[in-house]
Amino acid sequence: MDKRVKEVDIYRDKGGVREGFRDLLVEEIPLTIYLNEKEIVTLLCTPEYLEDLAVGFLVSEGFIRKKEDLREVKADYDKGMVRVLTSATSVIAESTFLKRYITTGCGKGTSFYHLTDVRRSKVPDTGLRVSGVEVLSLMKEAQHRSELFLKTGGVHGTALCDNRQILVFREDIGRHNATDKIAGKCFLEGIPLHDKLLLTTGRVSSEILIKTAKMGISILVSRSAPTALAVEIAHEAGVTIIGFARGNRFNIYTHPERVSPS
Amino acid sequence: MDKRVKEVDIYRDKGGVREGFRDLLVEEIPLTIYLNEKEIVTLLCTPEYLEDLAVGFLVSEGFIRKKEDLREVKADYDKGMVRVLTSATSVIAESTFLKRYITTGCGKGTSFYHLTDVRRSKVPDTGLRVSGVEVLSLMKEAQHRSELFLKTGGVHGTALCDNRQILVFREDIGRHNATDKIAGKCFLEGIPLHDKLLLTTGRVSSEILIKTAKMGISILVSRSAPTALAVEIAHEAGVTIIGFARGNRFNIYTHPERVSPS
Repeated sequence: MDKRVKEVDIYRDKGGVREGFRDLLVEEIPLTIYLNEKEIVTLLCTPEYLEDLAVGFLVSEGFIRKKEDLREVKADYDKGMVRVLTSATSVIAESTFLKRYITTGCGKGTSFYHLTDVRRSKVPDTGLRVSGVEVLSLMKEAQHRSELFLKTGGVHGTALCDNRQILVFREDIGRHNATDKIAGKCFLEGIPLHDKLLLTTGRVSSEILIKTAKMGISILVSRSAPTALAVEIAHEAGVTIIGFARGNRFNIYTHPERVSPS
Repeated sequence: MDKRVKEVDIYRDKGGVREGFRDLLVEEIPLTIYLNEKEIVTLLCTPEYLEDLAVGFLVSEGFIRKKEDLREVKADYDKGMVRVLTSATSVIAESTFLKRYITTGCGKGTSFYHLTDVRRSKVPDTGLRVSGVEVLSLMKEAQHRSELFLKTGGVHGTALCDNRQILVFREDIGRHNATDKIAGKCFLEGIPLHDKLLLTTGRVSSEILIKTAKMGISILVSRSAPTALAVEIAHEAGVTIIGFARGNRFNIYTHPERVSPS
């Protein structure tokens, strides 16, 4: 049985006729992350790839900088816990994390909303380019891969891609978690990111944009809309935002020079 | 000019043909909430009804319990701040808030994931009932009211309704913020909630369900899917969850006795 879903008995009402049937719901669990025996945060997430999620979160928030510092990552799925041990951790990250912790309407917190921080995360132009045909074909592939969404309708998907195909695909009740699961896997396996694109089925808030920039990824593709703040930060951070990629069309919000028409 | 949106110049690529045009994006700002001069949290939100949002958040998190305790609520839209002064605040809420602060993939944090807490928020059955026709007609009205969504595609809407019509409608980049904006308004204006329904265009995570239960609302209607955890808590808390309300159909996940077929 897929641990990401749960079967429940519900009623469906169609045109005034009610029938009982068995439905699939996406699982949601509270996951508490401990860093060197210290409780850092509790996320609500879909219960898979919890190690990747914890590491991705800690890297994205600046708690961990180098893979060599990582000593152990241990997930307890039943208790909803991940314990991470490191030989070094950023004191600055720890002290600013609680203070600056920012939450969104749609997504968990990240730090830094200061221009200096954004400049520090400026993504260097590595020469990565994408064509319009590639953008639309990758989005189409992502929809085919959205297995949990097709089952439950309750998740967002995020994909790490090169120009030709999807390399890693993750689904979660939270857009931010799906992104952190990818960031964690890449950090743990040393997968280079400067030549990759990130693709999401969800909206692009400032937090998703900042996560993308921190991963060093210069092209972010969404099926949906970006916010004005995400677009402002993307201008500054050097990230191309492509939005509303559906059917045979898409919008380019920032740094259009990376996208060729065909 | 609508302060919730921003005009930007972007490119649209359709069938390989690129054209420049002027688009509307939804605004996103970091809003810091201060309670009695103490910094509590920073939310990312759409800049309107900030006073309602701050009060709704503080009430929902248990910082404020009675309207009489409220002395002043002052928003500074330019600086992204709301200052709330009270004559009494819950010491328990303050001390547990930072510790138990839970964030989701899709939504900011709330407290309490313990059964005792859920039992404390059990919604009494006030006899509120709704018919299938009413559910679908309210959802249809909500879509017509989704002005900011139609402009930008970047927001979710939440509505407070009685059986016949939408009474309050709020849109925000965050589902949780839209709900808190309604909770704050109702708290400030003393609007009774036991005879109302809450309706959202977004998914139903455990956090949205808990917010609904804390407001004392017994029927929650969504256009989208609930999570397994939201459904578990709704069973316990006595809240009816209606999901996938679209066209002429909907699902009933919990407490179906409150929904008549026509």
